[in-house]
Amino acid sequence: MSNAPAVVDPGGLRAVLDGPWAWVRDAHRKHLDERFLPVYGETGDQARERVSRLLAELPVELGIRAGFPTEYGGGDDVGGSIVAIEMLAQVDLSLMVKAGVQWGLFGGAVAALGTTRHHDAYLRDIVSGSLFGCFAMTETGHGSDVQQLRTTCTYDPQTGTFDLHTPHEAARKDYIGNAARDGRMAVVFAQLITNGRKHGVHAWLVPIRDEHGNPLPGVTICDAGPKAGLLGVDNGRLSFDHVSVPRDMLLDRYAQIAEDGTYSSPIEDDSRRFFTMLGTLVRGRVSVGGAASAATRSALTIAVRYGDIRRQFGTPDADREVLLNDYLAHQRKLLPALATTYALHFAQAELVATLSEVQGGSGPVDEHRQRELESRAAGLKAAQTWHATRTIQMCREACGGAGYLAENRLPGLKADTDVFTTFEGDNTVLLQLVAKGLLTGYRDEFGSLDGWGRASFVAEHVREMVLERTAARPLVERLISAVPGRDEEVAVTDRGWQLKIFEDRERHRLDGAVRRLRNGAATKKDHPFDIFNDVQDHVIAVAAAHIDRVTLEAFVAGIDATADQAVRALLSRVCDLYALSVIEADKGWLLEHARLTPARAKTVTGVVNGLLKELRPHMRTLVDGFAIPDAWLNCAVLREEPRRQETMADHDVAGGR
Amino acid sequence: MSNAPAVVDPGGLRAVLDGPWAWVRDAHRKHLDERFLPVYGETGDQARERVSRLLAELPVELGIRAGFPTEYGGGDDVGGSIVAIEMLAQVDLSLMVKAGVQWGLFGGAVAALGTTRHHDAYLRDIVSGSLFGCFAMTETGHGSDVQQLRTTCTYDPQTGTFDLHTPHEAARKDYIGNAARDGRMAVVFAQLITNGRKHGVHAWLVPIRDEHGNPLPGVTICDAGPKAGLLGVDNGRLSFDHVSVPRDMLLDRYAQIAEDGTYSSPIEDDSRRFFTMLGTLVRGRVSVGGAASAATRSALTIAVRYGDIRRQFGTPDADREVLLNDYLAHQRKLLPALATTYALHFAQAELVATLSEVQGGSGPVDEHRQRELESRAAGLKAAQTWHATRTIQMCREACGGAGYLAENRLPGLKADTDVFTTFEGDNTVLLQLVAKGLLTGYRDEFGSLDGWGRASFVAEHVREMVLERTAARPLVERLISAVPGRDEEVAVTDRGWQLKIFEDRERHRLDGAVRRLRNGAATKKDHPFDIFNDVQDHVIAVAAAHIDRVTLEAFVAGIDATADQAVRALLSRVCDLYALSVIEADKGWLLEHARLTPARAKTVTGVVNGLLKELRPHMRTLVDGFAIPDAWLNCAVLREEPRRQETMADHDVAGGR
Repeated sequence: MSNAPAVVDPGGLRAVLDGPWAWVRDAHRKHLDERFLPVYGETGDQARERVSRLLAELPVELGIRAGFPTEYGGGDDVGGSIVAIEMLAQVDLSLMVKAGVQWGLFGGAVAALGTTRHHDAYLRDIVSGSLFGCFAMTETGHGSDVQQLRTTCTYDPQTGTFDLHTPHEAARKDYIGNAARDGRMAVVFAQLITNGRKHGVHAWLVPIRDEHGNPLPGVTICDAGPKAGLLGVDNGRLSFDHVSVPRDMLLDRYAQIAEDGTYSSPIEDDSRRFFTMLGTLVRGRVSVGGAASAATRSALTIAVRYGDIRRQFGTPDADREVLLNDYLAHQRKLLPALATTYALHFAQAELVATLSEVQGGSGPVDEHRQRELESRAAGLKAAQTWHATRTIQMCREACGGAGYLAENRLPGLKADTDVFTTFEGDNTVLLQLVAKGLLTGYRDEFGSLDGWGRASFVAEHVREMVLERTAARPLVERLISAVPGRDEEVAVTDRGWQLKIFEDRERHRLDGAVRRLRNGAATKKDHPFDIFNDVQDHVIAVAAAHIDRVTLEAFVAGIDATADQAVRALLSRVCDLYALSVIEADKGWLLEHARLTPARAKTVTGVVNGLLKELRPHMRTLVDGFAIPDAWLNCAVLREEPRRQETMADHDVAGGR
Repeated sequence: MSNAPAVVDPGGLRAVLDGPWAWVRDAHRKHLDERFLPVYGETGDQARERVSRLLAELPVELGIRAGFPTEYGGGDDVGGSIVAIEMLAQVDLSLMVKAGVQWGLFGGAVAALGTTRHHDAYLRDIVSGSLFGCFAMTETGHGSDVQQLRTTCTYDPQTGTFDLHTPHEAARKDYIGNAARDGRMAVVFAQLITNGRKHGVHAWLVPIRDEHGNPLPGVTICDAGPKAGLLGVDNGRLSFDHVSVPRDMLLDRYAQIAEDGTYSSPIEDDSRRFFTMLGTLVRGRVSVGGAASAATRSALTIAVRYGDIRRQFGTPDADREVLLNDYLAHQRKLLPALATTYALHFAQAELVATLSEVQGGSGPVDEHRQRELESRAAGLKAAQTWHATRTIQMCREACGGAGYLAENRLPGLKADTDVFTTFEGDNTVLLQLVAKGLLTGYRDEFGSLDGWGRASFVAEHVREMVLERTAARPLVERLISAVPGRDEEVAVTDRGWQLKIFEDRERHRLDGAVRRLRNGAATKKDHPFDIFNDVQDHVIAVAAAHIDRVTLEAFVAGIDATADQAVRALLSRVCDLYALSVIEADKGWLLEHARLTPARAKTVTGVVNGLLKELRPHMRTLVDGFAIPDAWLNCAVLREEPRRQETMADHDVAGGR
C-alpha cells in the first residue's frame, strides 16, 4: 500500500495549493513583513490604532481591492480579492476582518446594491481607503433571521427624504465592525415603508460621523467593548433617532422609489428580492471560510514544527528522548486534522473559482448557479470555521504550556477565529440552509412530497434550490462504477469505494429526513413547528454529509489535475487519510445502516494507523507546502527551541555540571 | 417512560449538589460580592495588581486555608479547601489559580514534603498570606516527564550548603505562578547530588526575592508575558546560577542529608520515592478538575438562561418567535453537556470525599488507596478539563455574537480554563497513567502477561497499581445482575443495562489492549518503543472507558443517596441522558463489537431525543440547582435582555412607529 514517495519537494505542493491566484499569495509573502504582524500584549486602543493605520498602508499590489471595477481603482477580479483576504488572515486576523469589513462588506454592498450614482460618488474613496464605512445589518434582537430586522426607513413624499429609525433597543445595530472608531458612513439595512406599505428589507448609504469623527445628529454610537479576540477591530452599536436620509441614498439596484413614494422593483416578491440582494454579498461568507482555513494552516504549521523539535520521555532503543511527532497519539491528533485541512483547501479553491465565474462577469447572473454557489458557500463556511476552532484548540494543547503563551501565536489564532463560527451566519443555521436546498431538490426530483410540502412553516423555510453535482462528477462516477459489487473485494483505500460511501451516506440520510418529514406532516398537521423541529438533528446530519462529499470530490478533482507525480502520490495518501478519518468518525452510522461490516470498520482503523506511520516522515513537508513565511508564524518557541535543543544535547545527562 | 415530575424545586437539587461541604459553598456565596469578580478589559498589570490584592483579602471563613493544620491557621480539612478552590473558580479563575498556587501548590508542598522545622518557620505566614511563594517544578524542557528535570542541587560538605543550579536554558523553571511579581520564596524541585551520587528529584525551600521584591543574587526572574487568559496570574521563569541553599532548606520528610553529605531515606528506590512525594500533592490535580467543572456550570447557566429569553425565527403556530431552547438542535447541544456536568459533579464529590479520607487523617496513608486516589484524580482531571473546554466553547457559540463579547463572561471562562487541559499534567499523558494502572491490575489478576511485562520500556512505565472498584459497587452489581440475559428484553433506560454496557466496554477494551501488547512484545522485542507506541490509541481508549464507568457509577450512587423523591426522579432522567449520550457517541465501537444491534442503536438515538423533550421544561431548574449567585455570572446580556424582550413585545411587528 505504500505508494508515497520517500521525499517530496514542498515547492511542488505549494504550486498546487497556490493555484490560479498564486500572484496574490506571492504578493502577500513579498510585501507584508513583521510590521504587519500582531503585537502581543497590546491594549484594545493600541491594537485599534495600529490596525487602522496598517489598513490604509496595505500595498495595492496585494489584490485586496481587486474585487472592484478597474475604473474605481479595483481590478475586476473577485477571486483575487477573496484569496487576498485569506492571505491576510495568516498575517493578522484583526487586519483581515477590518479589510473584510471595509472592502468586502461595506464596499461590496455599495458596489453590488448601489447604482452608478453611488459608485461615482463613493466607490473610488472606499477602494482607496480614504472613506471608511460599516455594514450595519445585524441587530441585537435579529442576527440569524435578518428578514425580520426591526429598524425602519419610511419615505415621506413631502420632504422627499427617508426617516431612518431604531424603534427599540433590540433593534439597534450590533457587533458592527468599523463602527466604534473609524467608520464615516454605513450601509444600513432596514424595513422600507412607503405610502403606508412595507416592502421588506432594503439598504441605504448613511453618513454616521462628521469630518471630525463625531456622530451626526440623531446617530448614537456605542463601543461594543472588549471581545474574546480581534482587539484591533472596532465593533460598535448604532442607533438612529429619526435620521433624515435623502431619497437618492437608497441603494437602488433592486428597488427604486419615485419622488412621490411609488415603489418599483424588477423582483416582485419581497422575500425573493431580499435573498437576491443577500446573494450578491455571498463573497463575505466565502472569505470567512477561506480565512478560517488559512489560520488553521498557521496553527498546524506551528504545532507540527514544534512536535518535530520537542522531546519528552526516554526509550531504551534511542539515546535521546522521543519527539512528540513520533507518538501515535500525537499523530492521531495532528495528521487527520492536516488531511482535512488539505481537503478543505481544495474545496475552498473550487468555491472561489466558481464564485469568480458566476459573479465575475459583467453579464446577468445565472440564477441556478447563483443558488448553488450560496449553498456551497454556506456549507463550506460552516465546515471550515468549525474545523478551525477544533484544530487550533488541538494545536494549542499539542504545544502544552507553550501553546498558552501569547508569544507563541496560538492564543491569538484561537481567540481571533472563534467568532467565525457564528458571524456571517451561525453555522447551525447555515447547515439548515444547505439541508433545505437538498430537500427541495429531492422534492423536485421525486415530486411526491406534497404532504410536508404543504405544511406552511416548512414551505416558508424551504427556498427553491436544486443542488448541483460537483465539477469532479464525471471522474467521480468513473471511479465509483469501477468498484466491484462486493465491498469485501476492494481495499478501503480504493478511491471509488470511498466516494461511494460518502455518496451513499448523503443519499440515505436525505431519504431518511424526507421520510420523517413526510410522516411528521401527516401526523402533526396542527403543529407545523414540530414537523420541522423533530427532524432538525437529521436535517443537520444531511447537510454535514453533503459537505463531506463535496469536499472529498474537490480533493479528488484537485489530485486529478496535479501533474507532478511525487506530489500526486503524496496527496493521494493524504486524501486516503481524510476519507478514512471521516468514515472512522462516523462508523456508528455506517454500521447501523449496514454500509460497513464490523470487520471492515476495524480494517479502516488499522489502515488509518498505517497511514499515520506512512505520513509521519512527510509531516514537515505537508506544512511547508503551505509556504507560510517563517516571520509570519510570529512564534517565539520556534525561534528559540532549536537553539535550546542544541544546548541540551551537551547536557542530556541530568546532573552534568 | 415519563417519570420526571412536573416541577422540581431547585433548592432540592442544590442540597444534593452542595453535599458535605455545603458550609464552604455557602460561605463563598455569602462573602464574595461584586468586588471579587473579574473586570473586563483590564491590562495585564491591572489584573495582577487587583488579584494579588484580593487574594490577601479573602475572608478566612471561606475555608480556602482549611487544608492546613489548625495550629498554623488552617482547619485540618483537606476536602473543604478543595471545595473552596472549586467555588473560587466561579468567582474569578485568576483568583482561583493564584490561591491554588499559594495554598495548594506552594503551601501544600511545604506542609507535605517539609518537617516541623519548616512548618514552624514558614507555615503560619504562608497560610495567612503574608509570605507569597511559588511551586517551581516544570522546566522549559520537561513538563510531563518531571522525573527528568535538569536543575541540579549538589551538596557540599565543606560549606554545609547545597548548590542550586540551572545548567542550560531548557532547564529553567517555566510557567511558574507567583514568580513574575509576588513570590518571595519558591519550592524548587531539582536532582539531588551528594558525595558524587544522584538520588533523583527532591524539593528545597528557596528564597528568590528580598524584602523590596528584588531578585536575590544568582536568581534570574523573567516574566512569561501575556497569555491566552488568566491575566491576573503572574507566571514567570526562574533560573539559578550556583545559588547557595542551606542544608536545612531541603524539604526532608522523605529524605535527609547528614552534615557530612550522607543521604538517607525511608524509601530506597529513587523513582518510588519521587512518586510518593508527588502523591502527597495530588490535591492540586483534584482542585483543577473541580475548578474546571465549576466554570463549566457557570457557562451552562449563562447559555441556558440566554436560550430561555432569546428568540429567533417565527412559526405559524405561535404569536412570538421561537425561544432558542425550544429548538431540538439547541437542546442537542446544551442538554447532554448539562447531563455530563451533573455526572462529573458526583464523580468529583466522591473523589474529594476519598481524598479527605485517605489524606485527611494524621496516621499513615494506606498505599493501595493512595494509588487508587492518584489514578482517579488523574482520570477525572482529564475528563473534567476536556469537558470544560468543549462545553464552554459550545456555550459561547450557543450565545452567538453575544457570546464573543467580554461583558457576557463566556470569553473569560473560555480563555482562563483553556490551560487546564495541559497543566497539572497533560491530559493525554494522564490518560496513559490511568491505563497503565488498569493494565497492571489486569496483569496481577491474570498473571499471564510475562511476554509484555518483560519488555523493559513497558515495565518501566507501568507503575504498580491495582485499580479499585467504586464505592457504588454493591449497588451496581445488584442492578447489573437484575438485567435479563437478552438485551432486547430490557429498555435502554434500564440502569443495570447501561451500567453493564459501560463495564463491558471497559473490560473488552482492556482485553484488547493487553492482547495487542502481548503480541507486540512477542514480535517487536528489539523495538520496545514500538510495542507501546503502536497500541497507544487503544490504551487511551481504555482509560476513557474507565473514566466513563467510574463517572456513571458515581452518578448512580449519588442518586441512590438522594432522599427527595422529586429530585431523585429528575436526576434519574438526567442520568439516563448522560449514559445514553455516551453510548450514542461511542456506538461505532459498540456496534463493531456486537454490544449493540443496529436496531437498538437507533432506539438509543430515539430515546435521547425523547429525553431532550422531557427535560426541556427542567433546563432552567437544572442550572438553578447549581445555585450560582446572579452577580457571579457577571453577564450583561442576562441583565439587559429581559428588559429588552419586554420592550420588543410592544413592537413585535416590524414597522411599528
